[in-house]
Amino acid sequence: MTTGKKDFVFGIHAVDEAIKAGHEIDKILVRKDITNTAIKELLSSAYQLNIPILKVPREKLSSITGKNHQGIIALLASIRYGSLDNVISNAYQGGQDPTLLVLDRITDVRNFGAIARTAEGLGFHGIVIPDKGGARLNNEAVKTSSGALLHLPVCRVKSLLSALEFLKNSGIQVVSISEKSDINIYDAELKGPLCLVLGSESEGIHNDILKKSDKILRIPMYGNISSYNVSVSMAMAGAEIIRQTKFIQT
Amino acid sequence: MTTGKKDFVFGIHAVDEAIKAGHEIDKILVRKDITNTAIKELLSSAYQLNIPILKVPREKLSSITGKNHQGIIALLASIRYGSLDNVISNAYQGGQDPTLLVLDRITDVRNFGAIARTAEGLGFHGIVIPDKGGARLNNEAVKTSSGALLHLPVCRVKSLLSALEFLKNSGIQVVSISEKSDINIYDAELKGPLCLVLGSESEGIHNDILKKSDKILRIPMYGNISSYNVSVSMAMAGAEIIRQTKFIQT
Repeated sequence: MTTGKKDFVFGIHAVDEAIKAGHEIDKILVRKDITNTAIKELLSSAYQLNIPILKVPREKLSSITGKNHQGIIALLASIRYGSLDNVISNAYQGGQDPTLLVLDRITDVRNFGAIARTAEGLGFHGIVIPDKGGARLNNEAVKTSSGALLHLPVCRVKSLLSALEFLKNSGIQVVSISEKSDINIYDAELKGPLCLVLGSESEGIHNDILKKSDKILRIPMYGNISSYNVSVSMAMAGAEIIRQTKFIQT
Repeated sequence: MTTGKKDFVFGIHAVDEAIKAGHEIDKILVRKDITNTAIKELLSSAYQLNIPILKVPREKLSSITGKNHQGIIALLASIRYGSLDNVISNAYQGGQDPTLLVLDRITDVRNFGAIARTAEGLGFHGIVIPDKGGARLNNEAVKTSSGALLHLPVCRVKSLLSALEFLKNSGIQVVSISEKSDINIYDAELKGPLCLVLGSESEGIHNDILKKSDKILRIPMYGNISSYNVSVSMAMAGAEIIRQTKFIQT
């Protein structure tokens, strides 16, 4: 776990050490015309670890370090990353059914931070996001999350669909929230190992993900507005899961 | 109901007409050294109607109208105001128990807008706020509310305490949300005529209001964060009220 302050290491050796030491790395910036074999090997291990790699002009690197960066900089993560299977087994080891949140294309940093704050408060075990196309997990996200992102593991995955497949194979129920559903969250059983899926405010959840879902549920609406804010939807659905899990005797 | 565009009328006659015609007025700006008797009478009726009055230098008025304002300008409200008793009787006439929201010192415009969006979506009948010390109900509030503030009546009252007294005398249960409570929202009955009270993120609900409450409840928290965002608290408590009201057979 690190603090909210953005930090970085640079140079082949330092970045290599940071990766090997298990430092949480937000992103690796590398000179786009790089040919160095050591760097290429390093990028290969970074790729295996799902660390995003960005190819940039040499000047971009120099503007960050102002020193000899050897063509590579690792931006250290201010948030806590975790692997999906670790998060799941940690939950079970703690005597709890895993309760996860999957975010499909939530690009707004403030929404992401707000959602993380609520999820952490409700006792969710982790957030699953795609390693591309989501909100930037920067200091603003940490700040909006009220620090929740320093505690709640974020699992970055190459493919949400594969991750959901993995979750389902691990006995975890996939529950997607969509206004198009006819079934209300209050008419569904939301207990046991479960992952709650929410999509972007503009596009909702991708059809392929909806197809993989065990349940597609809506949050009741009675007024004139056409939708709830996504962080509010998460709060209402997440709270109902916690209510059914912790407040109903079986 | 008006659109989100900020509009105004100026001059003694026009402002007088706007008041008499029942136009929703956000605020009246008046020259601070005014002596005109007609204006004083007009201000007196505005005061009776709980319309905020702001005394400003003549130049301020001229900068808005650029014309002969005669020392008085009424800023027309972009949101829908209502009186507490109207809101209550409208709910009953619609065959529903009144469900209201009382906001104690929520000063952040975006939080206010977000709360209004959720409250309108959940079918709340109105929001009660003090006429001083709350968020500015401007176009940003309307925008953040996704237009909900064009539908959901906002009742501005001189004193929240008196308003709560009035609500209690009308048979409406006062339910305050506070982290300091030991009783969970999921362990309480939240049915029938009800008003939900939320306080500012920094200061919570005023002690005098807590004392007037029939129930003080907390929202469950299991993580490391110290509190939920106030609009998230409202969403979780509001959704639980709606669940108990509409999804549990009695």
